[in-house]
Amino acid sequence: MPTTKAYATPSASSPLAPFEIDRRHPGREDVQIEILYCGVCHSDLHTARNEWKNTIYPCVPGHEIVGRVIAVGDRVQKFRVGDLAGVGCMVDSCGHCHPCHEGEEQYCENGFTGTYNGPMFGGGENTFGGYAQSIVVKEAFVLHIQHDEKDLASVAPLLCAGITTYSPLRHWGAGPGKKVGVVGLGGLGHMGVKLAHAMGAHVVLFTTSPSKVEDGKRLGADEVVISRDPRQMAAHANSFDFILNTVAAPHDLDVFLQMLKLDGTMTLVGAPAEPHPSPEVFNLILKRRQLAGSLIGGIRETQEMLDFCAEHGIGSDVEVIPMNYINTAYERMLKSDVKYRFVIDMASLQ
Amino acid sequence: MPTTKAYATPSASSPLAPFEIDRRHPGREDVQIEILYCGVCHSDLHTARNEWKNTIYPCVPGHEIVGRVIAVGDRVQKFRVGDLAGVGCMVDSCGHCHPCHEGEEQYCENGFTGTYNGPMFGGGENTFGGYAQSIVVKEAFVLHIQHDEKDLASVAPLLCAGITTYSPLRHWGAGPGKKVGVVGLGGLGHMGVKLAHAMGAHVVLFTTSPSKVEDGKRLGADEVVISRDPRQMAAHANSFDFILNTVAAPHDLDVFLQMLKLDGTMTLVGAPAEPHPSPEVFNLILKRRQLAGSLIGGIRETQEMLDFCAEHGIGSDVEVIPMNYINTAYERMLKSDVKYRFVIDMASLQ
Repeated sequence: MPTTKAYATPSASSPLAPFEIDRRHPGREDVQIEILYCGVCHSDLHTARNEWKNTIYPCVPGHEIVGRVIAVGDRVQKFRVGDLAGVGCMVDSCGHCHPCHEGEEQYCENGFTGTYNGPMFGGGENTFGGYAQSIVVKEAFVLHIQHDEKDLASVAPLLCAGITTYSPLRHWGAGPGKKVGVVGLGGLGHMGVKLAHAMGAHVVLFTTSPSKVEDGKRLGADEVVISRDPRQMAAHANSFDFILNTVAAPHDLDVFLQMLKLDGTMTLVGAPAEPHPSPEVFNLILKRRQLAGSLIGGIRETQEMLDFCAEHGIGSDVEVIPMNYINTAYERMLKSDVKYRFVIDMASLQ
Repeated sequence: MPTTKAYATPSASSPLAPFEIDRRHPGREDVQIEILYCGVCHSDLHTARNEWKNTIYPCVPGHEIVGRVIAVGDRVQKFRVGDLAGVGCMVDSCGHCHPCHEGEEQYCENGFTGTYNGPMFGGGENTFGGYAQSIVVKEAFVLHIQHDEKDLASVAPLLCAGITTYSPLRHWGAGPGKKVGVVGLGGLGHMGVKLAHAMGAHVVLFTTSPSKVEDGKRLGADEVVISRDPRQMAAHANSFDFILNTVAAPHDLDVFLQMLKLDGTMTLVGAPAEPHPSPEVFNLILKRRQLAGSLIGGIRETQEMLDFCAEHGIGSDVEVIPMNYINTAYERMLKSDVKYRFVIDMASLQ
């Protein structure tokens, strides 16, 4: 079994530190990838610290992976050695349930296999993620990257933050003639703004921070609303077709539900450790509004998103860091002190 | 102004008692109806007792009205003296906003006028409802009744309980090949079961009461699940296209959200005085589920529902009471001691 350098944590209370893991030899349908960059997702921190109570240790986080193909099995058809490639949140699924047939492996009824902490939503053995020099993944779960190689660091976060926002925007019809809100300007929110803008929607960013107004507009928001200002909020009441809520911290959902027009939907893509205050039922009933959730996206849609981003010149705004900066990065992430995604340069792990 | 006998309450803490009200003379577009029966809706009690903090006194409840046309204005085209007619929860709306144009007056952006306590959702003067001998209503808000006159008492509750369940069942596509849940077997729930069954869906009733199993099946449920039995619930996990939740008392929404399959929706039609416990966000995210609300239905759809019910021989299961029984009926309603709707025989008010 080939050994690869990685960063892992042995317990919820330990920092991440250098670690060696075994990867499987590439099988006939496998693609082996030298990891060049890996984005740092808030889920990495949740999992490293066992905040969702399901972590298997040692834990090697990382599911925003981009790199170069260094070996392929003899049945691999779509990848060649030297290709740029990406891996997102999933490395396998059952392949035979209804969602898998529909290309929505993220909703696999038998539980997809996470790129790290594999049994998170299903069963099976533990998996090790992208905070590592290389990874071996089944071809069906490997993505093509059309971006220029020089932009590769900014592509990594598309594999989770990008698809997590792209999929609900598409599913609920963001596009020309639609008024779309994005709540929160972090790793997910800044991608939501860029993508909804590129899809042609009228985009309104909701943020609690006046300091983010300018950046919100730079990223593509037509308007920025300070959500703590009742007067600004009142001006947008009952007017949104769709709101993408990226804030994982518990917060008042009602103020945003009230922004939706008749038949509007607000979709949550962040999962708080503690529940949000309970939404007011009248806010749903009086305008037939919907409160929904959405989980990443399927492999086919992830490829569609990557191609869309390449075509529109979209990447994440990133701060590239060395691997040994990860524990500091987690602390800064908790303070939202990053614009807007940390990405690890894996050359630093050599 | 013609005077009519009615039952009213002068304050949140008073019982309902005989009262005389003035109705307007029928205008050129008005229909005057002698009220024969009026259903007793839980909203009547909420409003009589000011539980939604918006009651104007004196209050004459009642918005499940059926009767006979006794006069029409000269511009009235669709009703003649002697016709059976119904009036539901609304007697007017702005007529020019987008929902009004779409025939969804219940979502009127300027606030429809409630049949009683008129300014409930909008402005305007107070209105007096159906606990009265007669009512005068604009033709556009009067419904035709095709049922036999002998079934009239059972038609009254269709005007609120019927349309409140019919509209979301239609909106979210209840029909052949769909698995539809109905939570709660009360005034709304028993209509939900009858209607979903008539629409051709596979209907599962969720109830906390083993005593309701038999009645649920008689009303049209294919299966009845005791929602407090985790084993029975587990057998239905992730399997519903749509769940109509009619329970207004605060309760755990998560156990029902978990019954929904991918892209399933649970719609709330009851509004609790206190919020439900906050639903778990992961239950929305992991299957892209939706939690929604729905309010009665528009006039066009109410007519469609009445015609559908006449065609399928559907009425409410009712207990007919005299007007002076209303305070006792309220107390029994609070104990769910009615199968499944009280209906006042207005002859008792003479």
